[in-house]
Amino acid sequence: MTSNDGGAAPTAELLTATIELGDALRELIEASVTTTAATAEVAAAAELVRAATARISAGSPRQASQLPRLDDPAEGLRVFNPVTGVAHPLAPPLVVRQEDGGVVAEVTLGLAYEGPPTFVHGGMSALFMDQMLGSAAGAAGLWGMTAHLELDYRGPLPLQQTLQLRARVESHEGRKAFITGTIALAADPEKILVEARGLFVMPRPEKQAAYFGTVTDATGRHAPPRRPGDATALQQG
Amino acid sequence: MTSNDGGAAPTAELLTATIELGDALRELIEASVTTTAATAEVAAAAELVRAATARISAGSPRQASQLPRLDDPAEGLRVFNPVTGVAHPLAPPLVVRQEDGGVVAEVTLGLAYEGPPTFVHGGMSALFMDQMLGSAAGAAGLWGMTAHLELDYRGPLPLQQTLQLRARVESHEGRKAFITGTIALAADPEKILVEARGLFVMPRPEKQAAYFGTVTDATGRHAPPRRPGDATALQQG
Repeated sequence: MTSNDGGAAPTAELLTATIELGDALRELIEASVTTTAATAEVAAAAELVRAATARISAGSPRQASQLPRLDDPAEGLRVFNPVTGVAHPLAPPLVVRQEDGGVVAEVTLGLAYEGPPTFVHGGMSALFMDQMLGSAAGAAGLWGMTAHLELDYRGPLPLQQTLQLRARVESHEGRKAFITGTIALAADPEKILVEARGLFVMPRPEKQAAYFGTVTDATGRHAPPRRPGDATALQQG
Repeated sequence: MTSNDGGAAPTAELLTATIELGDALRELIEASVTTTAATAEVAAAAELVRAATARISAGSPRQASQLPRLDDPAEGLRVFNPVTGVAHPLAPPLVVRQEDGGVVAEVTLGLAYEGPPTFVHGGMSALFMDQMLGSAAGAAGLWGMTAHLELDYRGPLPLQQTLQLRARVESHEGRKAFITGTIALAADPEKILVEARGLFVMPRPEKQAAYFGTVTDATGRHAPPRRPGDATALQQG
């Protein structure tokens, strides 16, 4: 069942439990930045969190060069992507689907993503746009790593209102892809609040070997990602 | 002790417990994306997390328009900033200090910040640079909101190695500040891996009123932030 520290086999039950832990953590993160509870309650919560960590820390953690046991590089499934990963506590997550020759996602952000009071942190918009541009590349059958990213902020993004994120490949040639994206309120999608432009470049074969030559899957098999920056959790529209 | 849902008074004990919860959550997040534990252990961890959420969810959570009880807008202290906040589970946190006419921070990122296998997510670099540019503005006595952000990625940032982030205000005129920043390995600080340029703009008074007119502190007192994008957790160098 286990080999080379990969841990428990990637069953449907393990995936369910892993997603449940991600969901529970998202809820606790939001509670932790908004709570008005007394000191003793906050301290008790911290103790429960330490106990949870102990429960899942018995074996060796996976190393950075080892893909998670639940990932399927052949399918582009990455459950722990920090923006789109269904099991990643930092990810809202963005659920990205193909539509209108590009990709689109709707998301409502809580106070965990706050920058200026009541608004989304400007850097969060950049994080999400980078991922959307990468997802657009993946949806177009391309992949690459960010070489240039540029954003214009026309207005602040409110927390707790549904946002619509879009991205599409404008052109590509050889190893380069030019990709654009936008963020608007879902209720007012024509009024663009954030605009992004990116150049994504697929590394040359020798760079790919240097960057990913040691990457293995959870069983220890050599598994250089075919599309390292690809469209995680992409839903076929 | 409480008023208008602000919750428990901002004592040193509350700050300690809140930071401890943030630290514990950071550790659990990293464990959750690297664990090789069995399904039952992952499920048990999720249950403990749900219990922790229940412990701190008794009262009303603060609203988006209400600053956290532990924040001190007059001092620019924001404990829940998602990049620099000492108590924010999503923040590594970056500990930003003033140095050489700008700001600098060192950070080592775990697998929670992973994009392509073994490397930092490109969008995370953008998130951190946006915050560093804002911190540089704050350190220079300025503040503003991101109007334009632009990044060149010259090489991927490895996980689990100490990175050095720098930013400085290049020029400012009226409500505008031009700010640049870099990321390099702390062990090789001259070799710039990510380069950022940003334009930060202080909103006009009427915009400030529109954006922040309803913001109150934890006691319900009107408290429009003087520097909404300011240098959280800035250490005087």
